[in-house]
Amino acid sequence: MRDFTLDQLIQLADELRQETISAVSVTGGHLGAGLGVVELTVALHHVFNTPEDRLIWDVGHQCYPHKILTGRRDRIRTLRQEGGLSGFTKRSESPYDPFGAAHSSTSISAGLGMAVGRDILGRENNVVSVIGDGSMSAGMAYEAMNNAGAMDSRQIVILNDNDMSIAPPVGAMSAYLSRLLSGRSYRSLREVMKQIAARLPDPLERTAKRAEEFARGMMTGGTLFEELGFYYVGPIDGHNLEHLIPVLKNARDARNGPILIHCVTQKGKGYPPAEAAADKYHGVAKFDVITGAQAKATPNAPSYTKVFAQSLIKEATSDEKIVAVTAAMPDGTGLDQFAKSFPARCFDVGIAEQHAVTFAAGMATEGLKPFVAIYSTFLQRAYDQVVHDVALQNLPVRFAIDRAGLVGADGATHAGSFDTTYLATLPNMVVMAAADEAELVHMVATAAAYDAGPISFRYPRGEGVGVDLPEQAEILEIGKGRILREGSTIAILSFGTRLEEAKLAAETLDEMGYSTTVADARFCKPLDENLVTDLAQNHDLLITIEEGSIGGFGSHVMQFLAHAGLLDGNLKVRPLCMADQYIDQANIKKMYDIAGLNAEQIVECARSALNIPQKTDKSTAASSR
Amino acid sequence: MRDFTLDQLIQLADELRQETISAVSVTGGHLGAGLGVVELTVALHHVFNTPEDRLIWDVGHQCYPHKILTGRRDRIRTLRQEGGLSGFTKRSESPYDPFGAAHSSTSISAGLGMAVGRDILGRENNVVSVIGDGSMSAGMAYEAMNNAGAMDSRQIVILNDNDMSIAPPVGAMSAYLSRLLSGRSYRSLREVMKQIAARLPDPLERTAKRAEEFARGMMTGGTLFEELGFYYVGPIDGHNLEHLIPVLKNARDARNGPILIHCVTQKGKGYPPAEAAADKYHGVAKFDVITGAQAKATPNAPSYTKVFAQSLIKEATSDEKIVAVTAAMPDGTGLDQFAKSFPARCFDVGIAEQHAVTFAAGMATEGLKPFVAIYSTFLQRAYDQVVHDVALQNLPVRFAIDRAGLVGADGATHAGSFDTTYLATLPNMVVMAAADEAELVHMVATAAAYDAGPISFRYPRGEGVGVDLPEQAEILEIGKGRILREGSTIAILSFGTRLEEAKLAAETLDEMGYSTTVADARFCKPLDENLVTDLAQNHDLLITIEEGSIGGFGSHVMQFLAHAGLLDGNLKVRPLCMADQYIDQANIKKMYDIAGLNAEQIVECARSALNIPQKTDKSTAASSR
Repeated sequence: MRDFTLDQLIQLADELRQETISAVSVTGGHLGAGLGVVELTVALHHVFNTPEDRLIWDVGHQCYPHKILTGRRDRIRTLRQEGGLSGFTKRSESPYDPFGAAHSSTSISAGLGMAVGRDILGRENNVVSVIGDGSMSAGMAYEAMNNAGAMDSRQIVILNDNDMSIAPPVGAMSAYLSRLLSGRSYRSLREVMKQIAARLPDPLERTAKRAEEFARGMMTGGTLFEELGFYYVGPIDGHNLEHLIPVLKNARDARNGPILIHCVTQKGKGYPPAEAAADKYHGVAKFDVITGAQAKATPNAPSYTKVFAQSLIKEATSDEKIVAVTAAMPDGTGLDQFAKSFPARCFDVGIAEQHAVTFAAGMATEGLKPFVAIYSTFLQRAYDQVVHDVALQNLPVRFAIDRAGLVGADGATHAGSFDTTYLATLPNMVVMAAADEAELVHMVATAAAYDAGPISFRYPRGEGVGVDLPEQAEILEIGKGRILREGSTIAILSFGTRLEEAKLAAETLDEMGYSTTVADARFCKPLDENLVTDLAQNHDLLITIEEGSIGGFGSHVMQFLAHAGLLDGNLKVRPLCMADQYIDQANIKKMYDIAGLNAEQIVECARSALNIPQKTDKSTAASSR
Repeated sequence: MRDFTLDQLIQLADELRQETISAVSVTGGHLGAGLGVVELTVALHHVFNTPEDRLIWDVGHQCYPHKILTGRRDRIRTLRQEGGLSGFTKRSESPYDPFGAAHSSTSISAGLGMAVGRDILGRENNVVSVIGDGSMSAGMAYEAMNNAGAMDSRQIVILNDNDMSIAPPVGAMSAYLSRLLSGRSYRSLREVMKQIAARLPDPLERTAKRAEEFARGMMTGGTLFEELGFYYVGPIDGHNLEHLIPVLKNARDARNGPILIHCVTQKGKGYPPAEAAADKYHGVAKFDVITGAQAKATPNAPSYTKVFAQSLIKEATSDEKIVAVTAAMPDGTGLDQFAKSFPARCFDVGIAEQHAVTFAAGMATEGLKPFVAIYSTFLQRAYDQVVHDVALQNLPVRFAIDRAGLVGADGATHAGSFDTTYLATLPNMVVMAAADEAELVHMVATAAAYDAGPISFRYPRGEGVGVDLPEQAEILEIGKGRILREGSTIAILSFGTRLEEAKLAAETLDEMGYSTTVADARFCKPLDENLVTDLAQNHDLLITIEEGSIGGFGSHVMQFLAHAGLLDGNLKVRPLCMADQYIDQANIKKMYDIAGLNAEQIVECARSALNIPQKTDKSTAASSR
């Protein structure tokens, strides 16, 4: 396609769009973002010598057309499935994916690193980062521009401005970009070519200089990027290959220094149902290509997200000090519902987790009760703010941690595996996990009531287990767990929604003749030391289980047991946490199999610890007690 | 001082400057930053009704004059001492410190939170954040401006532009600020008053409108902040009270929306030795007020920072792929030395830890060997980048983690307590800690040689223990510890520089008749399972010790022991980690006493575990074996 004519490229783009729609209709996934960059994808691979030239897609949920074009068409219908293609760019998948993504706003930093690497190693390739306007609200993108703008490294950044990330973007940068576009439509090709002329190598430069000065005088804006040291070109129509290709060619051939090409696209472009939808089909289920109708699974129970949102609304109705903060995920966190009820008490700060947390800390100092609703994996972005601005000052910020544990189709990049470990290690934190949706209701109420310092509660992606929701939320006693079934030989102490698996395992173990207790810790910190002591003293084997990596709940239990001398005798203890690996997308049950945290694995753990023969013979097993 | 005349305020500022110099000459600490804001401090407290009006100092190392003015003059000579005043703002210290600081760039977020809190709660106070130009390079400050600029909340940000943070600032924003100042000196008072007129309430506004339009036409710049939604005023001379006071009064009385006042100051102002010094006396030891000569402690051994820098230079001499990255701390990390040897291979990216890490990841994809040198406490800022961009992609980025463990005078905000926990929980990470400066030499070499994925090594603040540095660095076997002395009853397994305390404890325990093994794990991940097994099987008691909070090395040891069945018998195990509290500044030995990690506490732990009577009677103790 490097030699294709414009007509051929236009035809390729059409086919690529159809193939993208067709594939996602089968797999579900991110559609709108990909449709918005079909022409850009074609133009980039036409103009640049990928993979020698590095092409970095920010976030990566717009990369399906890119995957189709780069040798993965035959596998495109395996997107986001077990064993299939990732829904994001991924280094191990293709040399055309030089940098894996999924979290936003990393592409300029990575691109600058590659550009500097090229310079040091004496190579000549280009480096192109494609970043959305929403991603531009993250501090990381600014840090990268601030650094790149002061360096002389040759780097191209394409600002893919579709005025829409997952939700409509917020913040001053978004308003600024709108102003750049207002009052005029796109720059004409002639104007853009003048803009870019000064970046071309020397001979051309002189002749173009006056024209360029003229063009710059005409600009409506662009200053902000220019003040940050980028050469700004645009805005141009990102669906017009006739414009895109010569502009990209010129950028490719330009001299040193970073260039930003402001490219305007339309999310969902070319597929009427997507164009018409409010979210532009950002993330979709399988759908009918003709009608756009998405397959709706009938839920068995409300999602944890919904239960959180409804509970928070209920609390906020009777407590006007409750406010809520989201970092550009109002839908994903359920705060869109909260915002409908309390528009003046809900804050979407943009893709800006760091700011979100310290902003909440500021509100807490004034006596408000902020709930910061962030996915576990994205809270990683605000870790220092949790430590330094919240926990160290012991400010009562509430962390509602959604998507805790493994998450299915989004795979390893979105897994919420580390929050218990990185939060519970902090002095002053109270760290909870909901075992089911009723528990989540109680924990929202508990967090609302607890005003002595920071408190967090985690809950998973997806539906609850189907228990009845309580009429009246209960304020839990801080640091107190509960026993669900009493046994005498084995104790399983669960933290979070592995509780169902723990119960299943207990049934099996009971059937095998091993009387099994099941408890729900509710709190990792402060730990229910009485409960742990009781379980340790009255059972032969204590198994802990949690939906997280090493260093979390199990470690807190072990630390307590060790110093209390409860391990000095013959108690057997087996802390189960996630296996030490990143787990690719699959269904969640399968992912927990790989993690080693399903009921069968709990049973296997008990069997191995108690030397129970593999072939279960109930009478033998029972008599051995 | 609210009623003081200008002359009285000028005199107050002079006295405040002298008192600041005098106090820091006794205590050591941050001097240059405070001297630069003496007039600003006086003007702010004169104009604003603190503490009802919230005054937030970013970072806080410029707050000594503020502390003197706000009821802490009698304790100012206890700065940074045990039991004394913190070197930063601190909520628990004074109502005049509405937000604690120490890490940079949090003040706009916190200020916006307070402004929104005020609005929701129906109060009328002002909120003023003072932030340096260096802090403006951090993404967090941008995230906050992006959010504040799109909101209508009344908030004042004072950009304290001294063209100097700890090191000279880098990046495009810094260059931009310089351009704002170039070509003209400060704005005249009349011009500034015109700028600000439009923000005044209605009656004034109309008469001022034409003047304001005129003034804006004259502006040299300010657009970048205006494009981000701030009303920009300045630049003004931050040492001129005659200008500062009316400008601040007008800002105080302005309407809704955020205002940024660009205030130019000189770091070290008014103290000739500071003005003349390259670092403007950023952080100083005790000094002679007349000559400015600082007391120099004679070091007993080179600092870990210096050993790191020299080792890295040595490695880089023979391996041209080694590059180094610092986030605005070239001196603190020793990379200033590296930069002298390899200017083209050293990158100071500004206060931008997030970008630093992903920038390094980008370089790693191209085959370079990046060393990212960041303090433990600041690496928290880049946690998601470590997870998502480095560890998940298994990219060989080297993390040189300085200031690991407790740090003395900088107190709790700068403690490096959590890195082992938050890093070792990540799949793919190799996590090392140096037990002494010779070990650090080996670990730099090991990190340089290890190219299979990410690797980190931590080392503390201050001097090494005085061991000889090896002629030839050794490449350590990954996941292999070492035994330093062999015993038979107690095993102490140390990770990091508690090793000296472990040895001292072992001597005492040996004297008490308990034969004690001491081992250095070197690696938390991968764990030396053979070593741990050996220690567990051949001793009655295993103590682990580390300079970090719960969830780190001890937890990894316990997890292994539990699943290996090594806890099922009568082994006693006691994992020692930092006590669950933030520890205020003191000398490091004292801080580790509070943390519970000194030799006496190891001995006490063993005594308690083995039921050794408190009053040591060697013969009794020995016979009890």
